[in-house]
Amino acid sequence: MIRVGIMGATGYTAIEAIRILLRHPHVELMAATSRQAGGTALGDLHPQFNGRTNLMVEDLTPQETAERCDLVLCCLPHAASAPIVTELLAHGARVIDLSADYRLSARELYEHWYGVSHPDPGRIGSVPYGLPELFHDQIAGAKLVANPGCYPTSAILPLAPLIKHQLIETDMIIVDAKSGVSGAGRSPKLTNLYSEVNESVAAYSVGAHRHQPEIVDVLERFTHHKPHIVFTPHLIPMDRGILSTIYVRPTDGASANQIRECLATFYSDQPFVRVVPHLPATKHVIHTNYCDIAVRESDGWIVLLSAIDNLVKGASGAAVQCMNIMNGWDQTTALFD
Amino acid sequence: MIRVGIMGATGYTAIEAIRILLRHPHVELMAATSRQAGGTALGDLHPQFNGRTNLMVEDLTPQETAERCDLVLCCLPHAASAPIVTELLAHGARVIDLSADYRLSARELYEHWYGVSHPDPGRIGSVPYGLPELFHDQIAGAKLVANPGCYPTSAILPLAPLIKHQLIETDMIIVDAKSGVSGAGRSPKLTNLYSEVNESVAAYSVGAHRHQPEIVDVLERFTHHKPHIVFTPHLIPMDRGILSTIYVRPTDGASANQIRECLATFYSDQPFVRVVPHLPATKHVIHTNYCDIAVRESDGWIVLLSAIDNLVKGASGAAVQCMNIMNGWDQTTALFD
Amino acid sequence: MIRVGIMGATGYTAIEAIRILLRHPHVELMAATSRQAGGTALGDLHPQFNGRTNLMVEDLTPQETAERCDLVLCCLPHAASAPIVTELLAHGARVIDLSADYRLSARELYEHWYGVSHPDPGRIGSVPYGLPELFHDQIAGAKLVANPGCYPTSAILPLAPLIKHQLIETDMIIVDAKSGVSGAGRSPKLTNLYSEVNESVAAYSVGAHRHQPEIVDVLERFTHHKPHIVFTPHLIPMDRGILSTIYVRPTDGASANQIRECLATFYSDQPFVRVVPHLPATKHVIHTNYCDIAVRESDGWIVLLSAIDNLVKGASGAAVQCMNIMNGWDQTTALFD
Amino acid sequence: MIRVGIMGATGYTAIEAIRILLRHPHVELMAATSRQAGGTALGDLHPQFNGRTNLMVEDLTPQETAERCDLVLCCLPHAASAPIVTELLAHGARVIDLSADYRLSARELYEHWYGVSHPDPGRIGSVPYGLPELFHDQIAGAKLVANPGCYPTSAILPLAPLIKHQLIETDMIIVDAKSGVSGAGRSPKLTNLYSEVNESVAAYSVGAHRHQPEIVDVLERFTHHKPHIVFTPHLIPMDRGILSTIYVRPTDGASANQIRECLATFYSDQPFVRVVPHLPATKHVIHTNYCDIAVRESDGWIVLLSAIDNLVKGASGAAVQCMNIMNGWDQTTALFD
Repeated sequence: MIRVGIMGATGYTAIEAIRILLRHPHVELMAATSRQAGGTALGDLHPQFNGRTNLMVEDLTPQETAERCDLVLCCLPHAASAPIVTELLAHGARVIDLSADYRLSARELYEHWYGVSHPDPGRIGSVPYGLPELFHDQIAGAKLVANPGCYPTSAILPLAPLIKHQLIETDMIIVDAKSGVSGAGRSPKLTNLYSEVNESVAAYSVGAHRHQPEIVDVLERFTHHKPHIVFTPHLIPMDRGILSTIYVRPTDGASANQIRECLATFYSDQPFVRVVPHLPATKHVIHTNYCDIAVRESDGWIVLLSAIDNLVKGASGAAVQCMNIMNGWDQTTALFD
Repeated sequence: MIRVGIMGATGYTAIEAIRILLRHPHVELMAATSRQAGGTALGDLHPQFNGRTNLMVEDLTPQETAERCDLVLCCLPHAASAPIVTELLAHGARVIDLSADYRLSARELYEHWYGVSHPDPGRIGSVPYGLPELFHDQIAGAKLVANPGCYPTSAILPLAPLIKHQLIETDMIIVDAKSGVSGAGRSPKLTNLYSEVNESVAAYSVGAHRHQPEIVDVLERFTHHKPHIVFTPHLIPMDRGILSTIYVRPTDGASANQIRECLATFYSDQPFVRVVPHLPATKHVIHTNYCDIAVRESDGWIVLLSAIDNLVKGASGAAVQCMNIMNGWDQTTALFD
Repeated sequence: MIRVGIMGATGYTAIEAIRILLRHPHVELMAATSRQAGGTALGDLHPQFNGRTNLMVEDLTPQETAERCDLVLCCLPHAASAPIVTELLAHGARVIDLSADYRLSARELYEHWYGVSHPDPGRIGSVPYGLPELFHDQIAGAKLVANPGCYPTSAILPLAPLIKHQLIETDMIIVDAKSGVSGAGRSPKLTNLYSEVNESVAAYSVGAHRHQPEIVDVLERFTHHKPHIVFTPHLIPMDRGILSTIYVRPTDGASANQIRECLATFYSDQPFVRVVPHLPATKHVIHTNYCDIAVRESDGWIVLLSAIDNLVKGASGAAVQCMNIMNGWDQTTALFD
Repeated sequence: MIRVGIMGATGYTAIEAIRILLRHPHVELMAATSRQAGGTALGDLHPQFNGRTNLMVEDLTPQETAERCDLVLCCLPHAASAPIVTELLAHGARVIDLSADYRLSARELYEHWYGVSHPDPGRIGSVPYGLPELFHDQIAGAKLVANPGCYPTSAILPLAPLIKHQLIETDMIIVDAKSGVSGAGRSPKLTNLYSEVNESVAAYSVGAHRHQPEIVDVLERFTHHKPHIVFTPHLIPMDRGILSTIYVRPTDGASANQIRECLATFYSDQPFVRVVPHLPATKHVIHTNYCDIAVRESDGWIVLLSAIDNLVKGASGAAVQCMNIMNGWDQTTALFD
């Protein structure tokens, strides 16, 4: 039994993390913090938890949180997160950071894309990237893990094995991603209003989304060439789920079957990656920690399709999976709902 | 005032056509046919038309329909349509065929993709393709027009001018299209049930959709090389609208600005194509006959975004636009709602 | 041709009003005002109007607006609206006020429910209520019309004739209303975010919604007894549309058939009220100015069902209908889209 | 560990039951039957279960199923279910029947409302109604339990205690219920197509829905008078969830507070009923076995609001709750996901 806390308890990733932690057999939820919502019962702030927990949301400092918890899930915005993480670590807590602050391998890359000085430059580059299917051993022994972005999870899982085994060209990769709206967060914005989003689809941040360098940065670890990724996110009228449709060129002689076989073999021992024969629908993975991947051929291109729940495998499920590994538990604990 | 009929009055394209025709100042709706729904008032079959028309739905033969109408919109399934069209023409009616039967330029192509013998092989290849922005003059004098498919409209409008002006490579074009569910028709099928579609997104017919050869076939008319198109349609949880995200390689030296300029110039006199600076959302075009197009650059690729209403510009609005042209009226008549 | 302006051009009712006015044959849209959006082209603020109008949104005073326009649709929030309306009238413009400021018959009622002093108490009680089916003649000669609330329109149209003809008891009326989210306005609020609203339904303001006294106040004009109305609004996951399910007790001897007959007769000359045999769906009335009404019997109660588009018959369509009447035009002008 | 089977494995209630059973610590899923889908892997029929189970769907007889299972959840349509249940019982299996076949207390009532002869008239009236909050002890010892309908669950839970304690009048109860579309089942029907349901709301079966007599029949057990219930179901555009808005008259002197207190006390030991201060949203209960209830006052009426997930507390969650009780386990086992 370890004591776990959540910093930043108001958003959608926090809600999903709480939902999973409340059913986790080895975890006691000891703290849920929020600056604005401090003093409210968690079951009042998020009525779905009414009756499930008596925990109060509190405006705790990182030190207070670290004193009460062995491990903290940090659900704060980028740039705000790193200073908190630093303090949590200084006071002895292990941390899984769901922000983007520790995902990239170089300070310059972070500062270029996020437009701010990195608040904890000494650590950047040495923090494991919390994708257990690829970085299990680094996660196992870590004090701090950088939880992956939702789009990168959906893109890296199908691409990394193929790049590693040189089955696809790295200079021509197109990721066309479709996401539910919960990925845009819970702050009131015109663009996320129901009547703006419903019955509509649009791309956003074309050629300029911060998950593009994250995908490139992680994939580069599997090849000698920096991959070229065109990444186009779209907002579609659903609450949760991401489907990434990925267009790649096979290297000479690589067939769709070989590519499928490569993925199936690579993930054969992984409980949360399913290489499926049918075309994946997000319907089949939402509320689960699965990533479903399919392979198709089209006019000389390989089309990879990859479906996750952005709040589970794309955020809080992945965090709990990392937490399970960091504590030596079966990585699926509390993740087959 | 011309007399217009609709054959196949039960589906979504027919409903949309009726909606537009009822407000058309130069048209009298004289017939709405259906095999199953014959004998029902149109206002009972589709209660939105209650009070707008007293027309009865009837199970009319093509000859009966042609005797009553100067022009017929044929909203029947492929293969079923051509024999009816043949008879309508034989009895003197002009026809706009919303099925796929006359869209392709060669019988073999049709028979390969549709898996049936073409019922009217003599005409195939000589019927104008009903995209007025590209084939206005052929449409103007036609007795029969082949109304374009919804996906092809959204792909051909941004691509044709760029191919014609050799601003993009034709051997590497990826069309990733997202469609609302009305495009799948009104026949009860498990895959179109609300609880299957809602809160889900999936690709379908990857590398095998019949609109792929239609796009290739039409674009080929603007170049010396047969273009290579990877086409991936997706079903997303909304009623109407298509967004096509199209990835192309610029030819040497062509910039995003040049490409945007080319499209803006090409369509400067076209009332229904808007080359817009913002990223198009289907929200802005549904219930209109517009196609909104934007251009972006991403890592050496050009990303074209194109939004239409699949039932209006992608079907019945286009048909009325053709009808306006065939009759010498302003092509926007009844199309600015 | 009259010159028309819109004050408060950013919200959903303004968007719908603009859409209708742009197709109106006797109207020229001369002004669209907004404090925040002044200086933007209307086609940039609302991209659906791109290419339809070159009008600029401006931060105009009421006097400037009145000088440019014969008639103004005022789409401002309650309490903010009346002072503007006062000035518009003073400078010679006729006004249709879409806020609640002039709907109620007594200042005290307004001040009790809206919690503010009425900014123009002299006029309250003498302004026609803009429901042409009930108050046509007062509207015809008015300088100022109070456009009805969306819920009241859906409740009053089925109830008023039955109360007038004493076919239902007035002391026991339950209005259970279901509304799309556009009725909640376009200001960013947590409760209107897509991920809060989608896949959920809830009641709100039970026993405390400001449309309850509006319904009572207007219905009282048709009887000697102040009616008792229990009104419960619900938010459901759709963009537009209201269905009101209304439970009433028939007076002695009144049958469902008599009640249906009463409504059918009462509205027989009204182009926008349809007494229908089937159960109304909002699908059949959205994007139209119709109100569909059905009558059923259940265990001694009469169940009235009433469907409108909250933005058309429940707001801007009704306003244009009033405008048509105020100008002596056919009241359906521009309203059959 | 008991062996459990599902008869009729293709529909939404079966899918939800399988989801819960796969995480149940005391259950082994031994059979999933289907006439049409026999021979398919369960993980192929419902891809969400891919990797979770290797079970094959089989076309088993009741006897074969009973031989393999200690307890069977019967997810078949009414009238088809009872003959199967009879055989399952005859061969020694305990059964929870999710159809309507054993819910009503009298054969005549069943035959009147369902329009067929009851296939097992001997048992009707003696089968416990599977609402553990009201009939725990009868369920505990039963061989066969009749799982409640979804609407009745949402209506009976708030009403039964108030009727029992004579706090409300029984002759004037109005239940206005709003349901997601999964309640309509998984058979392809025009009325359940996405493009028919989305962006629309309508009532159906007004005064004629089979859940009305079920509500009356069960509530009658708590009073000396047969209650009068007006029941109006509505289909709203969401996948799952039911909100019932219930209008009742308090008996003399009963206040909203007393009524709230009565419910809170009655359900104080019940883990799945929450009497909440806020207005319940289905969002807060979907994917859970909770029923959230709130009480409001409006113009002399009491408004009860009750929210459930129609597939969980309204179907398969309730069935598992009954199964837990029938086996002497904690009734919440596997139900806090």
